[in-house]
Amino acid sequence: MSKSTSPAGKQLWTGRFSEPTDAFVERFSASVDFDSRLALHDIQGSAAHARMLADCGVLSPDERDSILAGLEQIGEEIAAGVFPWATQLEDVHMNIEHRLTEKIGEAGKKLHTGRSRNDQIATDIRLFLRAEIDAISSELTRFQRGLLDLAEREADTIMPGFTHLQVAQPVTMGHHLLAWWEMLERDRGRLADCRGRMNMCPLGAAALAGTSFPIDRSATAEELGFDAPTRNSLDSVSDRDFAIEFASVASITLVHLSRMAEEMILWASQQFGFIELPDRFCTGSSIMPQKKNPDVAELVRGKAARAQGNLVQLLTLMKGQPLAYNRDNQEDKEPIFDSVDTLRDSLTAFADMVPAMEVNRKRCREAARAGFATATDLADYLVRQNVAFRDAHEVVGKAVRYAADNDRDLADLSLEELRQFSSAIADDVYAVLTLEGSVAARSHIGGTAPKQVKSQVKAARERLA
Amino acid sequence: MSKSTSPAGKQLWTGRFSEPTDAFVERFSASVDFDSRLALHDIQGSAAHARMLADCGVLSPDERDSILAGLEQIGEEIAAGVFPWATQLEDVHMNIEHRLTEKIGEAGKKLHTGRSRNDQIATDIRLFLRAEIDAISSELTRFQRGLLDLAEREADTIMPGFTHLQVAQPVTMGHHLLAWWEMLERDRGRLADCRGRMNMCPLGAAALAGTSFPIDRSATAEELGFDAPTRNSLDSVSDRDFAIEFASVASITLVHLSRMAEEMILWASQQFGFIELPDRFCTGSSIMPQKKNPDVAELVRGKAARAQGNLVQLLTLMKGQPLAYNRDNQEDKEPIFDSVDTLRDSLTAFADMVPAMEVNRKRCREAARAGFATATDLADYLVRQNVAFRDAHEVVGKAVRYAADNDRDLADLSLEELRQFSSAIADDVYAVLTLEGSVAARSHIGGTAPKQVKSQVKAARERLA
Amino acid sequence: MSKSTSPAGKQLWTGRFSEPTDAFVERFSASVDFDSRLALHDIQGSAAHARMLADCGVLSPDERDSILAGLEQIGEEIAAGVFPWATQLEDVHMNIEHRLTEKIGEAGKKLHTGRSRNDQIATDIRLFLRAEIDAISSELTRFQRGLLDLAEREADTIMPGFTHLQVAQPVTMGHHLLAWWEMLERDRGRLADCRGRMNMCPLGAAALAGTSFPIDRSATAEELGFDAPTRNSLDSVSDRDFAIEFASVASITLVHLSRMAEEMILWASQQFGFIELPDRFCTGSSIMPQKKNPDVAELVRGKAARAQGNLVQLLTLMKGQPLAYNRDNQEDKEPIFDSVDTLRDSLTAFADMVPAMEVNRKRCREAARAGFATATDLADYLVRQNVAFRDAHEVVGKAVRYAADNDRDLADLSLEELRQFSSAIADDVYAVLTLEGSVAARSHIGGTAPKQVKSQVKAARERLA
Amino acid sequence: MSKSTSPAGKQLWTGRFSEPTDAFVERFSASVDFDSRLALHDIQGSAAHARMLADCGVLSPDERDSILAGLEQIGEEIAAGVFPWATQLEDVHMNIEHRLTEKIGEAGKKLHTGRSRNDQIATDIRLFLRAEIDAISSELTRFQRGLLDLAEREADTIMPGFTHLQVAQPVTMGHHLLAWWEMLERDRGRLADCRGRMNMCPLGAAALAGTSFPIDRSATAEELGFDAPTRNSLDSVSDRDFAIEFASVASITLVHLSRMAEEMILWASQQFGFIELPDRFCTGSSIMPQKKNPDVAELVRGKAARAQGNLVQLLTLMKGQPLAYNRDNQEDKEPIFDSVDTLRDSLTAFADMVPAMEVNRKRCREAARAGFATATDLADYLVRQNVAFRDAHEVVGKAVRYAADNDRDLADLSLEELRQFSSAIADDVYAVLTLEGSVAARSHIGGTAPKQVKSQVKAARERLA
Repeated sequence: MSKSTSPAGKQLWTGRFSEPTDAFVERFSASVDFDSRLALHDIQGSAAHARMLADCGVLSPDERDSILAGLEQIGEEIAAGVFPWATQLEDVHMNIEHRLTEKIGEAGKKLHTGRSRNDQIATDIRLFLRAEIDAISSELTRFQRGLLDLAEREADTIMPGFTHLQVAQPVTMGHHLLAWWEMLERDRGRLADCRGRMNMCPLGAAALAGTSFPIDRSATAEELGFDAPTRNSLDSVSDRDFAIEFASVASITLVHLSRMAEEMILWASQQFGFIELPDRFCTGSSIMPQKKNPDVAELVRGKAARAQGNLVQLLTLMKGQPLAYNRDNQEDKEPIFDSVDTLRDSLTAFADMVPAMEVNRKRCREAARAGFATATDLADYLVRQNVAFRDAHEVVGKAVRYAADNDRDLADLSLEELRQFSSAIADDVYAVLTLEGSVAARSHIGGTAPKQVKSQVKAARERLA
Repeated sequence: MSKSTSPAGKQLWTGRFSEPTDAFVERFSASVDFDSRLALHDIQGSAAHARMLADCGVLSPDERDSILAGLEQIGEEIAAGVFPWATQLEDVHMNIEHRLTEKIGEAGKKLHTGRSRNDQIATDIRLFLRAEIDAISSELTRFQRGLLDLAEREADTIMPGFTHLQVAQPVTMGHHLLAWWEMLERDRGRLADCRGRMNMCPLGAAALAGTSFPIDRSATAEELGFDAPTRNSLDSVSDRDFAIEFASVASITLVHLSRMAEEMILWASQQFGFIELPDRFCTGSSIMPQKKNPDVAELVRGKAARAQGNLVQLLTLMKGQPLAYNRDNQEDKEPIFDSVDTLRDSLTAFADMVPAMEVNRKRCREAARAGFATATDLADYLVRQNVAFRDAHEVVGKAVRYAADNDRDLADLSLEELRQFSSAIADDVYAVLTLEGSVAARSHIGGTAPKQVKSQVKAARERLA
Repeated sequence: MSKSTSPAGKQLWTGRFSEPTDAFVERFSASVDFDSRLALHDIQGSAAHARMLADCGVLSPDERDSILAGLEQIGEEIAAGVFPWATQLEDVHMNIEHRLTEKIGEAGKKLHTGRSRNDQIATDIRLFLRAEIDAISSELTRFQRGLLDLAEREADTIMPGFTHLQVAQPVTMGHHLLAWWEMLERDRGRLADCRGRMNMCPLGAAALAGTSFPIDRSATAEELGFDAPTRNSLDSVSDRDFAIEFASVASITLVHLSRMAEEMILWASQQFGFIELPDRFCTGSSIMPQKKNPDVAELVRGKAARAQGNLVQLLTLMKGQPLAYNRDNQEDKEPIFDSVDTLRDSLTAFADMVPAMEVNRKRCREAARAGFATATDLADYLVRQNVAFRDAHEVVGKAVRYAADNDRDLADLSLEELRQFSSAIADDVYAVLTLEGSVAARSHIGGTAPKQVKSQVKAARERLA
Repeated sequence: MSKSTSPAGKQLWTGRFSEPTDAFVERFSASVDFDSRLALHDIQGSAAHARMLADCGVLSPDERDSILAGLEQIGEEIAAGVFPWATQLEDVHMNIEHRLTEKIGEAGKKLHTGRSRNDQIATDIRLFLRAEIDAISSELTRFQRGLLDLAEREADTIMPGFTHLQVAQPVTMGHHLLAWWEMLERDRGRLADCRGRMNMCPLGAAALAGTSFPIDRSATAEELGFDAPTRNSLDSVSDRDFAIEFASVASITLVHLSRMAEEMILWASQQFGFIELPDRFCTGSSIMPQKKNPDVAELVRGKAARAQGNLVQLLTLMKGQPLAYNRDNQEDKEPIFDSVDTLRDSLTAFADMVPAMEVNRKRCREAARAGFATATDLADYLVRQNVAFRDAHEVVGKAVRYAADNDRDLADLSLEELRQFSSAIADDVYAVLTLEGSVAARSHIGGTAPKQVKSQVKAARERLA
């Protein structure tokens, strides 16, 4: 986009002023560098406003048509990168209105009848955010589908489940991946709620009090695809909830992605060795020739911090602001844009990469055999032999200490050795100490058994459909 | 609540350990100081679990009855403040289980069959939060009702509307108060969404993989009033979305309250003088005898910062955590409790105070006459005389500068003086320069006209009903 | 700056890789879009590294000279905006190294001997930040000087001092402005501490362990103006304290500016009317022709939120990261750059605008007469008549209530009326109720008396000199 | 501490008020529940104030002695837990002043002469924070000493150094631990700077403007151990920089501890197995009998989030506040207290635990042999054979790919195989591929060689002395 700081025109509110704006202040306060991103939404809103004004008799049909034609040309100039953006004209609205008047003359000066930049920007940003939420939801769903395919593929793969990063119990990798899916499913719900709540049209709120022209707010709301006009004009221009709520949803989603990222980084380490990421999703080192780094996962983990920074900025920005519009609010745009881009790109990266990871089933299985992963199964076995759970827990704890001191696994202890700790143990105990037995036994709703995993994959596909 | 650090019992997992916990670590890692707040929810969850275990044949009916009776007694001890809490027993769960076994013997040791503290705490905190959300919603609605009464009372009161804290246009105070109402209405929606999303039962997820006992998760979910069991056991114990989402909803709501607070502080200042707060909601100074300070509003403004701190803590806490449960998660309780208390108390304070404020209608009206508040009406008048809006804007800007230089208001200029700036001005112009004319003219949906305000109050009451 | 995503060259670490980087990942992970801002510092560091390598015999003098000449040319290309930046080359370092090799051949491939991008970026960012801190300190001091001039000019101007935004006691505006000065003086100290702590040279830490070449780290540290080399290579590449500490200093400074902003916005409102901001620092409204808004102050208030968002991002980014370098760290650049720009521009804006504000001494004085501002003086008077302070406080409180009920000021009450509340009051009381008497009486260190203000201005000028 | 909400007395500012405080507001706005923690500092400040007032002739010697005796008794009551705290008396100041007057009568009512709660709380909190910073610095230094002992013990222990959690180069564990030490050393500097900057005495600033009594602010400053009185009374009561700066220092320090925590959690996992933590610093599972979890490290990692939440709260709290004191500021106490406790306890926990960890040198060494850790050494070797570094990097990258495809390490390749990639390789190459050769070669300042580590330990001990 070409930008110019030379006077491409003059500000449109100077009647009351006795000296021109300070040059530094002009640059400091201008927003066109970033809000020009909203240009097409601004034009869309202006077109709807013009049509409505004509329908209400405020503009003539000719004026309307002239405005619509002018706006269309401007849209083409912007798309072609030839629009003469000027910092002196402050923002996207004034740049477009000024250009419109250059193009079509008198009628252009009438477009701003019955509106203000306050309701205009509130409309633009909602149109923008609504479209972006739709795009993000689509990437989110694509990632979810990829996870379901992977979970199905690895439904029988046994790996250690961790708590406190210590081996806890054997789980299936498909089950673990479905835990990721559940996080995303809640995110999908939050995105939808956010979209629903923001889809109200502020146009017509004007500066803060509404307008003295006989406008039809329902008409513009409908044309622009909103559910209804907003119910209070003061609130319409001072509300930035949609931005904060979106930033919050983005933060939570990126916290989820950061947790998946952390796990992939661990799993791809030489120490875990559970997965290998394709070379095309990794980069190397400028100094160490052997390095192949899980950069995408690391970046996404880092981007959770970014989304959180944006959320904090928006909350702090709005805290304690008196109504209605204050110029502070101009600072809402960059964090929204950044959270939108960060979230969408991170989802795209994972939707591409995660389903392509290669699982080293052998190392996963070996790791599940360490750390006495089936100790709980032994305790449960004792319970079934009528030992109270709390006593069974203590018995097995002692057996584990014995095995650890002797550098052996529970399944490696002889029956005689095991019976030192409880006479309730018989030779059928070895069945419950196997990995397959352990996971298969957890076959209730939400459990880690392969059978459960497959059934959950099926149900999840139906939810997405 | 009486607390004891003396050994009231021993930890319930020591079989595997060769030395006792370090005394400082015992204190550093214990959570019973704060999670004892969840005791009654913990008992509620344990009772449901015991009933289900009996129904599934894991406990005998006698064991079940013994457990239920023991839990009931413990609940009474806690309510009476005589329960012997022990830091050495780490947390609310172990304290209660240990006490139960003291009371009922062997059967107490069986209660923990088929569950873990991981799913237990996830259940407790949801039961707690669900109840608190209901209480908060109720206070929120009470505040909304109070606002509607006040808005109705002040539907005709004219005050200046501000943008950039500069007088912008006349508005009605009822209209302004309805802007507050709208903020709260979105908050109400967010609270309901949060409640809906969290109302799934994690019980039965056990440590992370589910359990090898033949449990019935749907039964406990139903008994505890949840919509369904959670769908994935790993996710069930590692998920803290409900905490973050609630903290986010609380933060946004408190940002809203902080904006109302800021306005009340301004309005109650000697400079504005729009309102007087009843003495019972104010405090004085230790040194300045004349002071009467709007402390409640200031505190609530400050509490928005607190809610935001809690949100940041929770997001940062969860970022980058590998699955499933990590001890970091213990740090989720205090910020949740604090956000719950902060939000509920702040709503109570405003629900009590705001409707009791006295409006100084005279000073509101006088303030609306300053700052050329009806300049936009003059511009709109010119548009109706066929001047393009952008030209009308410039004409009025110049007239304002002339009036300001002469220290007069627009309505004080003679027709001759006004016509210096545009010959389109005629002597009917003075009607549009009145405050009443200005607000009455803005009578579309969401506009500031008294008629609109009254109709919005009515519609809002219906939404709440 | 011209950027290209077309293959301008190939990545410099591909020996170990079997497939090219995914196109989306290439864009997602590239940093050259923002880290190219460090180009001249990168060249400066590379030149120092090359000279040191030659002095240590790792490069020949010819190789060194060739590298230095090449780097100089590249610096010129960058300054002229003709450098062929390529996203495919990932970052500023690889772009420059690749270009160097294009220009000078074989010797270019030797520049990276004994270093890594990990220590290189750590060096670049410190060079950058050090220079920016110096520029920021300079603007900060300029603003402080402007405040001293203004404080001197308004040393005798009486205005109300506020607590809880209620009129508290009369103060001089010079005194109030010196409170602003003190905030900035602490900020200056924090900036200096931050600069001192970061001024250590990480170059030579290489990837994380140091290098097997016989390098001289003290030589590069000295050439680049650092106080010493860093003491631990692992820490050198994983440390981002300088970024966090700077972001914290920037946040605190901007919180201070936001407080000044809030006060200027209040003071410029029609209700306060204490100051007028020059037209050149204000902007107008697109719809309301009379508006003149304090945009600069509002924006700066909003920018405090931005700086805080950056700080949160950096803290969250680094939390829980294992050593040494992780790709997450790439996300440190944008918040640092943004905090640097935000802080410097905000200081410039205030250094320009604040000293230019016009004080309406008449309205300040009138406002100080409201709100019973000299009630404390009356209490102090009573103490001097041997009334205990706590009793005096109560006496005056009652007198104030009486005056308020009768809509009069304390000084307007007759002696007889005053003596209703305490017989200790005599007719010399009226002297202490004057504004001039009140401020002149507070003439100890730090007090509001004009004499104190002038003496503090003098002392402050000496501190800055 | 016993607390009472029953009316233990009446508020001390009620002269001006016509109705008592609302019961809910009384509880909502009271701070005595938490600020009673400052009681002894409050008494210390009051004693200094009373002595100064007597020296200046405002109090008689008898009044002074009576006050000092009363304060001493109150201090004893508080220490003994028998002080009758009353919520109705709002805060620590009013509780103590009220009690003093109960005890000593008339003289007690004179203590508040020439001061306000505004300067009083500002003094108390600085006295508190100064003492806590000293205690924290002491724990920090203890931890640093423990690290030096451990680093010395493990100076020769070879382990893999990681970047991107991929094996990068061999390092010594002593070197790694010294990286931790460096983080703490910067923290120590920041703590000292924070202490220095806050050590100014606000007492005498009174409400905001100073006082009309002839006080001697230097005397109280000196008696209380401050460097000087603050220079501006308005700033003195509105400044909360010390709180924010401390919260920032605490956050950065806890981010450091969180990074150490993350590494210990990784190292203690079955997959890494580099260390074992003593049983006394670990806890078990309620369900899984084999578990031994690194809870302390996890909690400390989580507490970094808590410290950050407090920092955010304080920044947001102060943003945009007009001068001078506002009631919002009451919300500063709990986050300060919490950050103080969190930081000190976390340092204590690590100072106790970290030096007690047992290093499994065998597993460390084995891990360093994986991941082609000496590939950089091979590249450096080639450079010494006159291969340009960038070419050497590519040669080694290809050799690594070959070795990886054949599941072998570089050192396992035959000379013939190695020479496939570069004829510059001779049979002296195997020496550079050893772990000992690799670490010993990095022996410049800050490098990983055992010799360097030992010398850095010595230098570090001297810095601490």
